Amino acid sequence: MENEILRALSARKSVRVFTDEPVTAEERAAILQAAFQAPTAGNQQLYTILDITDPALKATMADLCDHQPFIAKAPLCLVFLADCRRWPRAYRAAGVEEPRNPGPGDLLLALADSCIAAQNAVTAAESLGIGSCYIGDVLENAEAMREALHLPTHVVPACMLVFGRPTQQQKDRKKPARFREEAVVCENVYRDRTEAELREDFALRGADLPEFDFDRYVQAFCNRKYESDFSREMSRSAGVYLKEFL
Amino acid sequence: MENEILRALSARKSVRVFTDEPVTAEERAAILQAAFQAPTAGNQQLYTILDITDPALKATMADLCDHQPFIAKAPLCLVFLADCRRWPRAYRAAGVEEPRNPGPGDLLLALADSCIAAQNAVTAAESLGIGSCYIGDVLENAEAMREALHLPTHVVPACMLVFGRPTQQQKDRKKPARFREEAVVCENVYRDRTEAELREDFALRGADLPEFDFDRYVQAFCNRKYESDFSREMSRSAGVYLKEFL
Repeated sequence: MENEILRALSARKSVRVFTDEPVTAEERAAILQAAFQAPTAGNQQLYTILDITDPALKATMADLCDHQPFIAKAPLCLVFLADCRRWPRAYRAAGVEEPRNPGPGDLLLALADSCIAAQNAVTAAESLGIGSCYIGDVLENAEAMREALHLPTHVVPACMLVFGRPTQQQKDRKKPARFREEAVVCENVYRDRTEAELREDFALRGADLPEFDFDRYVQAFCNRKYESDFSREMSRSAGVYLKEFL
Repeated sequence: MENEILRALSARKSVRVFTDEPVTAEERAAILQAAFQAPTAGNQQLYTILDITDPALKATMADLCDHQPFIAKAPLCLVFLADCRRWPRAYRAAGVEEPRNPGPGDLLLALADSCIAAQNAVTAAESLGIGSCYIGDVLENAEAMREALHLPTHVVPACMLVFGRPTQQQKDRKKPARFREEAVVCENVYRDRTEAELREDFALRGADLPEFDFDRYVQAFCNRKYESDFSREMSRSAGVYLKEFL
């Protein structure tokens, strides 16, 4: 199957180096509109989007998100917050006396709403020649993040996106290969991949890499990512946010 | 700004009644490919997708997801699972002796990955004339859901999608209006809407509804959704999943 939309979804890759060209007000509006028009649970839009325009705050975000200076250079920077606060505040305003406290289900639903909206923003931007990159590190440093973004209770960062026009080097960068279908899709029920299957899944994905070796590659990835300080910090910090909902 | 992709993102609305036409194998493959090609943290694809093909299991899902029979009638039904299990299993297979247990940060990152991939599936389907609907209720009934889908530890439903061709009635259905920009976007830092602003946000969104009344509408919504049994069950159930990561 082929059409313009499928091609665009397939071609999209992360962009981390931007030209100096700004994202115009019209482009920003189109990106935000696409986010708003995304599917949302019960038409609630369980998110708030922060548009980070202050250069000093952008620099703070770059620092709090595992010290990635390219974040501060992005022409457009949006933080998608799972917002379990707006609707309960509306309930009170409407005269509901004691709405229950938001729980884990409300949080997970709002996180889903936020990421679904964010991905529409990514696709809209791509259609305008604007690249993007998700910053998962926005989950880190809960205390400092709350202070920097004035986050009240029951409002949690879901993801962050930076946008800008890709440099030529970024356009030329090869998109990394994904796993084959059977590595990530099961029919009806979950089944663990056997060790042999895992090795083949990774080998096929890594076929383009020079001298791919499963043990070496996966061990190095584990050290660099999963056992890294930022990854441990992300789990500590996410735990701080979750506590409010338990 | 206008282009085919922006128009498609804006026009897309949920579809809950499907014609009898199947989703073909080629269409299914295109939808899954779009999901795989979505942005993913560190190119990890922190999800597993269950393709529910067994009619009896579809009926069980319809039942476990707040008794919504239309789920069982969907030609294609995909469950997106946040999978914090595949990579640690690969780490062990590669000889890492004791990878740490997945924590809350790993779970939130995998939930984001899952929903981002799911939204690409929605957009891809739309481009093929195939409608879709998210089923947030997949977060409910953790114990029965785990049993039905054989979910092991550290694998959590993020969202579910049903797909099919819309009936004429569904095509004609009006897409519900979203909030205006200032209701959901803040510059730089979070700010609560005042009660007057909330009332106006909701009134503008409800302008098309006959005799919109903030107090009556919001109170009724609160009773029907937020204070409903299924919403409380969702939070209880989500808490069961979270416990493993704390």
